[in-house]
Amino acid sequence: MASPDAAVQVSSVTYQQLADIESDFDDINTQLLIQQAVSERSLYERRASLLRKITGFWPLVLEQAPPEIDQYIQPGDAAVLGNFLEDIEVTRFEIGDSVSSKDNGEPRSFAIRFTFAENDVFEDRVLEKRFWYRHAPVKEAEEGDKKKDDVAESWSGIVSEPVAIKWKKDKDLTGGLLDLAVKVYQEGEKSASVAALIEQLEKTALGGISFFAWFGYVGRRVSAEESKAAETLKREQRAGRAAKEAKGETEEAEDDEDEDEDMIEDVDDSYEYEIFGDGDIVALAFAEDLWPNAIKYFRQAQEEETLSDLEFEDMDEDDDEDEDDEGGDEGDAAIAPPSKKQRK
Amino acid sequence: MASPDAAVQVSSVTYQQLADIESDFDDINTQLLIQQAVSERSLYERRASLLRKITGFWPLVLEQAPPEIDQYIQPGDAAVLGNFLEDIEVTRFEIGDSVSSKDNGEPRSFAIRFTFAENDVFEDRVLEKRFWYRHAPVKEAEEGDKKKDDVAESWSGIVSEPVAIKWKKDKDLTGGLLDLAVKVYQEGEKSASVAALIEQLEKTALGGISFFAWFGYVGRRVSAEESKAAETLKREQRAGRAAKEAKGETEEAEDDEDEDEDMIEDVDDSYEYEIFGDGDIVALAFAEDLWPNAIKYFRQAQEEETLSDLEFEDMDEDDDEDEDDEGGDEGDAAIAPPSKKQRK
Repeated sequence: MASPDAAVQVSSVTYQQLADIESDFDDINTQLLIQQAVSERSLYERRASLLRKITGFWPLVLEQAPPEIDQYIQPGDAAVLGNFLEDIEVTRFEIGDSVSSKDNGEPRSFAIRFTFAENDVFEDRVLEKRFWYRHAPVKEAEEGDKKKDDVAESWSGIVSEPVAIKWKKDKDLTGGLLDLAVKVYQEGEKSASVAALIEQLEKTALGGISFFAWFGYVGRRVSAEESKAAETLKREQRAGRAAKEAKGETEEAEDDEDEDEDMIEDVDDSYEYEIFGDGDIVALAFAEDLWPNAIKYFRQAQEEETLSDLEFEDMDEDDDEDEDDEGGDEGDAAIAPPSKKQRK
Repeated sequence: MASPDAAVQVSSVTYQQLADIESDFDDINTQLLIQQAVSERSLYERRASLLRKITGFWPLVLEQAPPEIDQYIQPGDAAVLGNFLEDIEVTRFEIGDSVSSKDNGEPRSFAIRFTFAENDVFEDRVLEKRFWYRHAPVKEAEEGDKKKDDVAESWSGIVSEPVAIKWKKDKDLTGGLLDLAVKVYQEGEKSASVAALIEQLEKTALGGISFFAWFGYVGRRVSAEESKAAETLKREQRAGRAAKEAKGETEEAEDDEDEDEDMIEDVDDSYEYEIFGDGDIVALAFAEDLWPNAIKYFRQAQEEETLSDLEFEDMDEDDDEDEDDEGGDEGDAAIAPPSKKQRK
């Protein structure tokens, strides 16, 4: 409840000024992310060559996956990932080898590349999904419209394109959903596949969707050109406001006591035929958590395994030295490969 | 449960190698954090001068505080923070104005400074608490001990010193706990205040401790000298291993089938007379979340307030225009000061 004098002391600061400050922080952050991508690259390569020597590294890491990922791994997915996943690699493909390169693009765009051993589920040895960081077009305002200066709180985030998987006969873990998503995306919204996709989506039980349907994620439909134009426009407007402010022409803060009805809601422009709604969340969990913290997750997995081995021994009342011991925390200890066990 | 052939294919990678890779990432991260502190500083100053014009900015932000902080704010604390808190400022005090300065220290050390209006609870207008990022000493290993090469997974984190508050008569929100904590810290563990502190701690109901007791947080007792020595030692050992590896003298990975008993547990060296166990978590929530995301939290608070105003109007069936309207999302809208309301 508002206090009686709330309307009296109106501040001279506008929401737009706060949003502009946040955009300035974003700009700094972009530079830091480019710096990070460049300076970490060779170390990630060194890490990769080390990790490749550890049998079952990535399957073990996935066992400890953060909930954003873990909740989507069905038993059928776990069998494939646990037995055949050989490597995961995240690359910031718009960033080159130098911080100052003019060719550097968006450091928030990334690709996730999964390498698999030959298996009986799909033909592919490599599945790579790309995510582009895009800015949604700023909505056109009517001329003279008061809303022209609305805070540009327009959407920015990652988008993708469906990636097909060459399923072996009768092995499609998504029940045809991914194939249909690829088709609809390619053939357009008027294709005959739309009805089939909708039907298949309805058939797929809630929560029972395969992790591999994630390869079909699209997100908002914002093209590279639209994104570029939106970014340029926002940047120009911001520069204009900054120039005005520098000249002391701060726009008078207007009081808008009765304009609640005019509040602009962020329209949900998400792709209509999305088969994996949380695709961006899963992607970010890979790129910003599982991938950078892989060694930490691996260590957790090993500790858990050691514990459950000990428990097992206790239950068994078997006092013999266990020859499959996973090793302790000894620094010079070799890393034992994971025991194969079924995901809960 | 381990598979039968688990012990056979022993990997050639050691835990130490993984830990060293992580330390290399830490080094890069340190550089990036220095860069960030330097490049964001003037923008934070610009933000501060803008925020100071918004009445009740920080109290509103605190209403939306992340759970790590929010859970410790008791009704009595909320009254003080809501009515008298004027400013919050986080500084990385070991970092200067240049990325390349030789004087730059640890970018993970920081100070949190609270500025209050004159109030009837304490004399202080400024309460500042400093946190130093320190490395715990590596435990001495017996000579010839196999554990000499143990993975140096020793503790690193932030520590602090108790900050006294000049309570006005009968207004101490911590019931004397903070004063005692300061005394014990200053007078040492053999002082007469220890018994009083323990007694007072027992009296303080679980979960009912005031947020202001956080100013008494100490954390691990690691001096700047000990930390420096530990860091240097770890760095030298790491460099030694890297040099060996470069010469191809990779230490043979040893099998340690029956050494589980020798596993080194991380000893909990936390300060014995801690009055606020989660002090580091609260501090990091301020420095890494509430402070950088303050504008986001402020916007959330305003939205929530608008919503509850609308609800109130509905309940009231009052069709008059509400004169205390908080303003919509209009960019040119002035920011109305918060209505004063009691924290739930």
